[in-house]
Amino acid sequence: MKVLITGGAGFLGRRLAGKLLERGTLKGPGGRDNAIDEIVLLDIAPAEGFSDARVRTIVGDISDAALLRRAVDRDTASVFHLAAIVSGQAEADFDLGMRINVDASRALLEACRGAGHKPRVVFTSSVAVYGGDLPATVPDSTALNPQSSYGMQKAVGELLLNDYSRKGFIDGRVMRLPTISVRPGKPNKAASSFASGIIREPLNGEESTCPVAPGTRVWLLSPRRAIEGLILGHDLPAEAFGSSRAVNLPGVCVTAGEMVAALKRVAGAETAKRVRWERDATIDRIVSSWPGAWDTRRAAALGFAGDADFDSIIRAYLEDDHKDYQMVMR
Amino acid sequence: MKVLITGGAGFLGRRLAGKLLERGTLKGPGGRDNAIDEIVLLDIAPAEGFSDARVRTIVGDISDAALLRRAVDRDTASVFHLAAIVSGQAEADFDLGMRINVDASRALLEACRGAGHKPRVVFTSSVAVYGGDLPATVPDSTALNPQSSYGMQKAVGELLLNDYSRKGFIDGRVMRLPTISVRPGKPNKAASSFASGIIREPLNGEESTCPVAPGTRVWLLSPRRAIEGLILGHDLPAEAFGSSRAVNLPGVCVTAGEMVAALKRVAGAETAKRVRWERDATIDRIVSSWPGAWDTRRAAALGFAGDADFDSIIRAYLEDDHKDYQMVMR
Repeated sequence: MKVLITGGAGFLGRRLAGKLLERGTLKGPGGRDNAIDEIVLLDIAPAEGFSDARVRTIVGDISDAALLRRAVDRDTASVFHLAAIVSGQAEADFDLGMRINVDASRALLEACRGAGHKPRVVFTSSVAVYGGDLPATVPDSTALNPQSSYGMQKAVGELLLNDYSRKGFIDGRVMRLPTISVRPGKPNKAASSFASGIIREPLNGEESTCPVAPGTRVWLLSPRRAIEGLILGHDLPAEAFGSSRAVNLPGVCVTAGEMVAALKRVAGAETAKRVRWERDATIDRIVSSWPGAWDTRRAAALGFAGDADFDSIIRAYLEDDHKDYQMVMR
Repeated sequence: MKVLITGGAGFLGRRLAGKLLERGTLKGPGGRDNAIDEIVLLDIAPAEGFSDARVRTIVGDISDAALLRRAVDRDTASVFHLAAIVSGQAEADFDLGMRINVDASRALLEACRGAGHKPRVVFTSSVAVYGGDLPATVPDSTALNPQSSYGMQKAVGELLLNDYSRKGFIDGRVMRLPTISVRPGKPNKAASSFASGIIREPLNGEESTCPVAPGTRVWLLSPRRAIEGLILGHDLPAEAFGSSRAVNLPGVCVTAGEMVAALKRVAGAETAKRVRWERDATIDRIVSSWPGAWDTRRAAALGFAGDADFDSIIRAYLEDDHKDYQMVMR
């Protein structure tokens, strides 16, 4: 069987591909383990760093319906749809966000529907679908009330995925991810970019600016746990989801101030001092509209696991992504 | 100022136009009453029965973006977007529902955005946006979990309208309508068509089939109150809506059995006997996925009024739409 990963050249896409290559199988109908013969990494840029013969890269625009029809064929049993315009960029360029986050998602669902064999489609959604007047811990039954165009576009994607599943066009699963922290690499245009930057840059000996107030709550998940969650979300039987295909994956609730305190505990005061506090009203408004925590009972019942605490998240980053792990650890 | 009504040849569109002609004004920025100079009725068929010089009809496909750009100009202060593919038809023809309920709604919002002066847009939504495991009375904060393609498409429209409003492209308002009963005229392809048919047809001396079980709850609003609600929803200042532009308009909760009992009280046993019970599993499944009632406190606080009870709804139909009112009333 083939697996398609959109956004396959991105950090999560490459890491997911690596994990799937290591694993070698994904569940199919009837709960059977199916061997992965090919992983197609579709992205606007080539996915680099793979030598495994099972990996094929397709470079192109995800909003190109013809390209999507070529990328999804009769053997494409599973699709992980990770490609997206991130929150800050979707807010700055409304039309680009609509074209990629809505139109391309819909074109992908149409390609899957057209394939005729009801592929499993895992769609990543976000804390940004929530907003407005929220309780401290958001129950599953809470109305989606996004206060950013990114959140609106993800919420539209969720609705499509649910209805395409209900109609039997696909077998969809929506994984609502907490903010992923600590991402390796460079800052991006997500409003939540700081949630990785204020840990990653200081650990690399660089300064980093925190654009939200020290008291602003964030809801975080390590890349390691996110990848495990995407694979479990794929492998669960359709019946496990009930009337909604969306699951809120477990996170860790911390304030920006607590994140820096954890950095100090794990990597020392000198490292933690590299965080500068400089509020950006636009970013703080978007981030503060997101839930600081949501109810994780449904996810736990389905077998999803989060991180123990933010100290563990920093340690996971050091183990998985930081070259000089032993030097940094106190 | 000009008013555009999409679905202007339909029953609600024509009735709204009539009411606006009688009224002569709508609120504009700063709460001012603005004189209505023109009402444009856009629909796939010509809107008939108007002799008022202020009425102009445009016949065309609502999904034609060029047509929409012509229909919305610098003087179009207000848009009532009523055109839709109804629930039963959207379930039977997924692509048609997407084209009209999603793509045309988006094209209309784009035409309004392109006009550049932030027109007021009133969008009608539906009980069908709710579904799944619902409490007996649905609070405003409840997640939209549509179990029909129509409901999904309306929920997408709501998300778009909210974000276009937040971005300042339009000044949108979403009126979530209970099932409208009693509609005059012929049965349509809505799953809820029976909620008018089992009253209207017997009052016309005809038999009517009820496709849901006598115990199935429905949440109803008379056309009279619906029109009042659309106009109030238009006239409220934007600030009244808070973080969500959607308002659940007040309804009356009755079972199908209670509807027929009310018909007997209002029009006699002979009339009520014209209802035949013949369950249609598809229709009953869709209708049963909708809320039987929702919390109306927000609507009441904003000034929206519903009907007193279902007997009043039947009497309102007789007064407004039935030729032989005096003959029917007991």
